[in-house]
Amino acid sequence: MGIVLGPNRYGKAENRVVRIVRDTPRHEIRDLNVSTSLRGDFAAAHTHGDQAQVLPTDTQKNTAFAFAKQHGVTSPEDYALALGSRLLEATPVATGATIAVDEYAWDRIEVDGAGHDHAFVRRGGEARTTRVDLGEDGTVVVSGLKDLVVLKSTGSEFKGFLRDEYTTLPDADDRILATALRAEWTYRPGQQPDWNATYDAVRALLLATFATTYSRALQESLYAMGTAVLEAHDEIAEISFAAPNKHHFLVDLAPFGLDNPGEVFIAADRPYGLIEATVTREPEDGR
Amino acid sequence: MGIVLGPNRYGKAENRVVRIVRDTPRHEIRDLNVSTSLRGDFAAAHTHGDQAQVLPTDTQKNTAFAFAKQHGVTSPEDYALALGSRLLEATPVATGATIAVDEYAWDRIEVDGAGHDHAFVRRGGEARTTRVDLGEDGTVVVSGLKDLVVLKSTGSEFKGFLRDEYTTLPDADDRILATALRAEWTYRPGQQPDWNATYDAVRALLLATFATTYSRALQESLYAMGTAVLEAHDEIAEISFAAPNKHHFLVDLAPFGLDNPGEVFIAADRPYGLIEATVTREPEDGR
Amino acid sequence: MGIVLGPNRYGKAENRVVRIVRDTPRHEIRDLNVSTSLRGDFAAAHTHGDQAQVLPTDTQKNTAFAFAKQHGVTSPEDYALALGSRLLEATPVATGATIAVDEYAWDRIEVDGAGHDHAFVRRGGEARTTRVDLGEDGTVVVSGLKDLVVLKSTGSEFKGFLRDEYTTLPDADDRILATALRAEWTYRPGQQPDWNATYDAVRALLLATFATTYSRALQESLYAMGTAVLEAHDEIAEISFAAPNKHHFLVDLAPFGLDNPGEVFIAADRPYGLIEATVTREPEDGR
Amino acid sequence: MGIVLGPNRYGKAENRVVRIVRDTPRHEIRDLNVSTSLRGDFAAAHTHGDQAQVLPTDTQKNTAFAFAKQHGVTSPEDYALALGSRLLEATPVATGATIAVDEYAWDRIEVDGAGHDHAFVRRGGEARTTRVDLGEDGTVVVSGLKDLVVLKSTGSEFKGFLRDEYTTLPDADDRILATALRAEWTYRPGQQPDWNATYDAVRALLLATFATTYSRALQESLYAMGTAVLEAHDEIAEISFAAPNKHHFLVDLAPFGLDNPGEVFIAADRPYGLIEATVTREPEDGR
Repeated sequence: MGIVLGPNRYGKAENRVVRIVRDTPRHEIRDLNVSTSLRGDFAAAHTHGDQAQVLPTDTQKNTAFAFAKQHGVTSPEDYALALGSRLLEATPVATGATIAVDEYAWDRIEVDGAGHDHAFVRRGGEARTTRVDLGEDGTVVVSGLKDLVVLKSTGSEFKGFLRDEYTTLPDADDRILATALRAEWTYRPGQQPDWNATYDAVRALLLATFATTYSRALQESLYAMGTAVLEAHDEIAEISFAAPNKHHFLVDLAPFGLDNPGEVFIAADRPYGLIEATVTREPEDGR
Repeated sequence: MGIVLGPNRYGKAENRVVRIVRDTPRHEIRDLNVSTSLRGDFAAAHTHGDQAQVLPTDTQKNTAFAFAKQHGVTSPEDYALALGSRLLEATPVATGATIAVDEYAWDRIEVDGAGHDHAFVRRGGEARTTRVDLGEDGTVVVSGLKDLVVLKSTGSEFKGFLRDEYTTLPDADDRILATALRAEWTYRPGQQPDWNATYDAVRALLLATFATTYSRALQESLYAMGTAVLEAHDEIAEISFAAPNKHHFLVDLAPFGLDNPGEVFIAADRPYGLIEATVTREPEDGR
Repeated sequence: MGIVLGPNRYGKAENRVVRIVRDTPRHEIRDLNVSTSLRGDFAAAHTHGDQAQVLPTDTQKNTAFAFAKQHGVTSPEDYALALGSRLLEATPVATGATIAVDEYAWDRIEVDGAGHDHAFVRRGGEARTTRVDLGEDGTVVVSGLKDLVVLKSTGSEFKGFLRDEYTTLPDADDRILATALRAEWTYRPGQQPDWNATYDAVRALLLATFATTYSRALQESLYAMGTAVLEAHDEIAEISFAAPNKHHFLVDLAPFGLDNPGEVFIAADRPYGLIEATVTREPEDGR
Repeated sequence: MGIVLGPNRYGKAENRVVRIVRDTPRHEIRDLNVSTSLRGDFAAAHTHGDQAQVLPTDTQKNTAFAFAKQHGVTSPEDYALALGSRLLEATPVATGATIAVDEYAWDRIEVDGAGHDHAFVRRGGEARTTRVDLGEDGTVVVSGLKDLVVLKSTGSEFKGFLRDEYTTLPDADDRILATALRAEWTYRPGQQPDWNATYDAVRALLLATFATTYSRALQESLYAMGTAVLEAHDEIAEISFAAPNKHHFLVDLAPFGLDNPGEVFIAADRPYGLIEATVTREPEDGR
């Protein structure tokens, strides 16, 4: 009949797993959003409604919560690797599993100059992310962050660009550059670094490079950030960015007799430039 | 040394283009959210901040609005094809362009039993989508819809599934099945059907098949829907679905002395099952 | 020491109650978002952590679901009145209860020209709302709708306004007028009209009046809509509106050699004008 | 015929004003979301479409941006007071103005152990808020914060509550208590404290009191927080809270042979308890 099932996968998305470590009076908190998915030969479920080989998404959810206890959560990466292995093991026809985890950070509430033992305030800002894929070709760990909103109030230009008959944009010598960064870095196969320390180091390096790079375009900032990460972290194979250009338009105050030398801006919502780029290693570089 | 630019693209996302056709007193409205992106040899912008070959995202925005006038909007697909061709033409180093358009539907406001000439009420519900890709291997048109929320209050079961030690879910003989459907169908190369009529026909077929298919799993419903579309539409090569299982849990009213034979449910937000599947044609089928 | 508890209330917000009526093969669905709150002498809970007079929000939730079975849902108003009475009755120190219900509409999926018995598609668009307050001064029923997005592509101007040194807006003779309407109408005390029929009638009247009123400002449209409702519905005491002016700005296409006589607009997100107004009856009119 | 205009107001909502102070190489940033509204005798605009006394919302927007330059933004309160006065002055028939400002905080990006001069990362977390009302009875300044998400992993119970036949909730001796706090404190008339310092002090006090109060209900925590603020800040007349109880439910791991002594929770979205309370001063206390 010529009509067949193509690629497919299924799982449970957005399990909000909160793990409190309370072995001592000084509690720790890990606040996760966990999504699982399985792929493999699940054709019978699609074509005949036969669920015999389908591990329910409800069971995947149960496993995600049970593993927060059984295996613990020392890092999103470590937890995701354990959970993915378990789901593959439990599902004979599965050929691959992807576990995605977002982690939200909490700070201790400060009381009399010290962090409280069991009271926390959510840090806000970016989420730490990981996506672990266990498949027939091995395991891939991609770590990252999203919604890291950064801004430079100077040190950014945009000029000398291609012009056509629809171009009205003037050259800008000094503008605000801002983005809500999404970055994902892929570890080389077999690497098992200290996931938490590496996350902190990459995040700090991304921020510092954004700050100190004179930017002739968001593309140039991203490339500099990616290069800095790959140079400093041999365990990382490549890094990808998705960066909406959060436009801040200079407001024309001349009608009111006021100049505006880069002081008053309107932050716009839509449309926004969207820049996507990957920085990677040349093949001979050992991947 | 050995660090290089990988895949990259850039464009303007979420241009909210509204086109009124007012050639007669009976106006028409097309309400679009347009995103453009270009790919190609833009390495110099990344590595040296050189914008000489970069058509600004601001120009892409201008073109999107100008083309709503110059070319008009008879369908999202037709408009996207024209816009993509123009952007490629204007950007010598570009090797490909992707234009994504969401369209929001409006109905005429009813006054004295007839639709008003120039007053409209937004229909709500799903958005119609299209994503046109113009590249070195030709042009691909993918049409679809998203956020089409459908529900069956009976005619759905889920049982006989794989069980492990983390499984607590009982078999369900009669449950609510609901999803917020995302469907995308890819036209065969070179096809130029009546885009609007085809959209209406596919949408109606998806809905009717969802309604009339006894469902032993959301997977089975999706497969039936995809098969129905491919059987009826020879111009379509394949169709993909992403379908969150919007769980409606039967509320236990027994503690209050009440039975609940499928009458009172709590609609849950998270977590949710997420089913993704593609239904396609066998290679010998002419693709 | 001079510090006291002021106004306070508590309850359970956003209970997503879905009620299927399946007494015959042709099912009905009511899809509700229910929020309850109680007020009264709950000081001990605040000042001494004494819960003896506090009906838990969990119990309020249970009651909301149980009442969907016990009392049924013929209309949001009727259900809310019953639920509010019950919660007051169950909580001796409560002096008042407010029950707010949003209802989401579903249409039957069309199959072979007829609506299906048990398959539905969510209509989208506005939500129907009600807020019932039971207090010491009697019961007040406020019904309404929100997120009703309407647009006129002509028949709207804005000119002759007050100008000061910060004014740059030119007069507009013909513009798009659009809003996402929030309307709430308060029934006169003691009225028990057919809630569903009245809702349908008021909604239709609001739409038709918006369509047919030449608008010299959104304020004028709202006032006309309110007046029409009060004239036609003696059972309604007053009606209030909150209407964000969803700006559609005419795009300047002159740089591209194109005119733009009200054809191409950009739909803006923020900022937006926000107009709020109440239309009411004079005191001697019998309130 | 007895139908009249009731309360009404209008203005421009969500002006996203970003002010960079760049008098020295070390820039400062104030990132605001500004909403204005005017009330007064605007009946002619409603009843006859006469705009002669209506200062357009577009002009209000212009003024908001111009004042970020002319008056500057040393604090949201100070800026709002100036903006409100100006709008009242510009609009003869206006009898009152309300200016609401949300402020989003940014931190300097750390480079080599020091904060960068002109590169910032958005802090995330709560927004600082203010709402200034200038009316015929004087000026009222209400400052606050919203979306301050806090959590205690122990030190919270909920028991001894009122029970009825719909109650199923068991007593909880040790639970997670979490909320996304909204707090608004009203300054006594005529007070002009250091707005920024007071904000920091109140925020710190709210957090510390939340942390150190053993909680027998969210109500008790709020009352303690409010009392602490009023005791420490004589310039504040009262403080109001809206606190959704962000439920974290203990997951039952017994089916998997695991105990769960307060370690693994599911963070739920809806429904949620919603607690609202005001802590105020007795009349004789000088208001």
